[in-house]
Amino acid sequence: MATTREEALHLHRLKKGKLESKAKIPVRNTRDLSLAYSPGVAEPCKEIFDDPQKVFDYTMKSNMVAVVSNGSAVLGLGNIGADASLPVMEGKAVLFKSFAGVDAFPICLDTSDNEKIIETVKLMEPSFGGVNLEDIAAPHCFIIEERLKKETNIPVFHDDQHGTAIVTLAGLINALKETGKNLSDIKVVLNGAGAAGIAIIKLLKSMGVREMIMCDTRGAIYEGRQTGMNDVKENVAKVTNLAKKEGSLSEVIEGADVFIGVSVEGALTKEMVASMSDNPIIFAMANPVPEIMPEDAKAVGASVIGTGRSDFPNQVNNVLAFPGIFRGALDVNATHINEEMKRAAVYAIADLIADEERSADYVIPAPFDPRVAPAVAAAVAKTAMETGVARKNADPAEIAERTRREALIEEE
Amino acid sequence: MATTREEALHLHRLKKGKLESKAKIPVRNTRDLSLAYSPGVAEPCKEIFDDPQKVFDYTMKSNMVAVVSNGSAVLGLGNIGADASLPVMEGKAVLFKSFAGVDAFPICLDTSDNEKIIETVKLMEPSFGGVNLEDIAAPHCFIIEERLKKETNIPVFHDDQHGTAIVTLAGLINALKETGKNLSDIKVVLNGAGAAGIAIIKLLKSMGVREMIMCDTRGAIYEGRQTGMNDVKENVAKVTNLAKKEGSLSEVIEGADVFIGVSVEGALTKEMVASMSDNPIIFAMANPVPEIMPEDAKAVGASVIGTGRSDFPNQVNNVLAFPGIFRGALDVNATHINEEMKRAAVYAIADLIADEERSADYVIPAPFDPRVAPAVAAAVAKTAMETGVARKNADPAEIAERTRREALIEEE
Repeated sequence: MATTREEALHLHRLKKGKLESKAKIPVRNTRDLSLAYSPGVAEPCKEIFDDPQKVFDYTMKSNMVAVVSNGSAVLGLGNIGADASLPVMEGKAVLFKSFAGVDAFPICLDTSDNEKIIETVKLMEPSFGGVNLEDIAAPHCFIIEERLKKETNIPVFHDDQHGTAIVTLAGLINALKETGKNLSDIKVVLNGAGAAGIAIIKLLKSMGVREMIMCDTRGAIYEGRQTGMNDVKENVAKVTNLAKKEGSLSEVIEGADVFIGVSVEGALTKEMVASMSDNPIIFAMANPVPEIMPEDAKAVGASVIGTGRSDFPNQVNNVLAFPGIFRGALDVNATHINEEMKRAAVYAIADLIADEERSADYVIPAPFDPRVAPAVAAAVAKTAMETGVARKNADPAEIAERTRREALIEEE
Repeated sequence: MATTREEALHLHRLKKGKLESKAKIPVRNTRDLSLAYSPGVAEPCKEIFDDPQKVFDYTMKSNMVAVVSNGSAVLGLGNIGADASLPVMEGKAVLFKSFAGVDAFPICLDTSDNEKIIETVKLMEPSFGGVNLEDIAAPHCFIIEERLKKETNIPVFHDDQHGTAIVTLAGLINALKETGKNLSDIKVVLNGAGAAGIAIIKLLKSMGVREMIMCDTRGAIYEGRQTGMNDVKENVAKVTNLAKKEGSLSEVIEGADVFIGVSVEGALTKEMVASMSDNPIIFAMANPVPEIMPEDAKAVGASVIGTGRSDFPNQVNNVLAFPGIFRGALDVNATHINEEMKRAAVYAIADLIADEERSADYVIPAPFDPRVAPAVAAAVAKTAMETGVARKNADPAEIAERTRREALIEEE
């Protein structure tokens, strides 16, 4: 079952990559040509020229997401550049299609200049109904996402931040049910101040968590810390660690209910887990080796453990979030993916696990659970309509049904 | 058989546009995911990082063309902008796939700034194996194409220029056989100084035509003309009309063997045709109504008449050129589409019509002739290898066979 290097290379060589373009409307003969191209194509062009919103009725834009990267923070490989990132972005596009019938196309940009990335995406906006930013290094990813959210009229979503945050929060909600604790009472310590960490802190706060400490390689982040700070961490310091605790992870984790790791292998020790509150919850998402191995965390009392890996229970896999989120946003022609839509996705994922089937080893649905993308799509679309970012109305139940029908995945 | 407005709009609404993305390698279960995405995808990434040319082995880049436009000169509609141009660019992408199995994706850019278009295409180069510029107004299209040819490592081809020129020249070669004249002896008058006109002049010259006059709305262009000139026309004036003839189209067309019109309805009168040499050849390509109607030209002695229309004989349709040209260029990983490759395409198209089947009404193959794209692809690939712009070798016969197999068109 383990994938070998040769198998993976063979698969990528076999058909030269993983993504192709396909005609929805074939052009086989003169009549097809006259309707799909000249002279017939002039008619939808004129309609769109008269009313730009009709581009969503007559073109692929209504279902097409750009997967945009500059290859500056790819998987665990780091800054490998735009060319070498293409296999990942093609793969991401395949996942959009396979999980939720969303068309997606990889745009790999050969630059490390934020302004150029922002401008390129803005210039390309006519072709796309949404933008999924991917594998762009922090803190650049924050700046690029914020600017594009303001300066475009289509949803922009940095999956490394928000996808991870949404799935983590879904797992946390169910883990709290399992341990009988509440979001508003827990103390969370998060290790790793990269893109995912920052997004998780923001979402925790927006969902009602009051006590949080974020650590980076220098230990706890607090307002007034003199070293290793930047704008993003200064903002984190304003809303977390209000007691301004100083010290290393091992010092500030004492008594915490929840540990969330988006850092490196081995960052969490058995001793640290032992120092946490009763029944601590651990999300150790370093890849490919987690901050602590599940069996080690269990041995010292951890109640629920999630990781990024498919060979352990409770896998935090972004594929549970982004396909359904974009499906829902596109289907109501949303201008943004706002905080309310992200929270709706969290609860849609969490609520799929009923109380009677939930257990310490099952707080997050499996990646190939076919209920997930339809549920997320419906919840996100509904919330978009309720919060005023939808440009058209659609029935959430119909969106769920269509998502189910168009997905290509098999239940495992 | 005529297409109505409602039929065309219905077809575009039916599936919301014409193009979708499709997985070559499906992701249906955990094992697929581990090979096509994490962790397996890291292997091709590392290979490409070590050797950037391997991106052509492991990714979609090897078969993916960007169809790039800013919507500044769309069909007969003019400057309708990037949003409204999307149906045309989607249609073009569908034609690439249908005629030659080439994947293509529409990139509609919301700008009229040449520098921004150039920079955007350069930044996106990692995702694409070729660039088809489309419907960009002259003279901007010349500047953009020249710069991109120099500043990228993939073929860049402005189809409105070169596609039209190649198919016109193929028709001309067969028309000359029909009338017993030679390229090196004929006098050509071309009306219309836009993108296609300029490209036709260049290709005529590179194929050995010595006597040419280009006219614009002010009449013959000649070196030293004081009004209505620009850089492009100055260059035309240097290699055409060496006698510096002045005057209107009706004055300079006297005695010409060939008229080529890329101008407007009615620009060529019966009187002008009557003043040409014996058995004049007319390509009247104004759309939708030609410079002169075929029956009118015939009535005053024209021997061969080609137009842009599917309801007359000898349709000059770019679809005879661009799918096979890119197929051939991609299959040998060409860095450029050079003049030799364009001439090879001309002869590949012309030579499909044998002497015994050729007639005044059949000097250009039909758009859905299934022999065309394979023949063009093989000839272009062979010439790329011979002229040193191919980065890999391939058997032209195998390229032709694969093109035939992958095309979706029906012979009519």
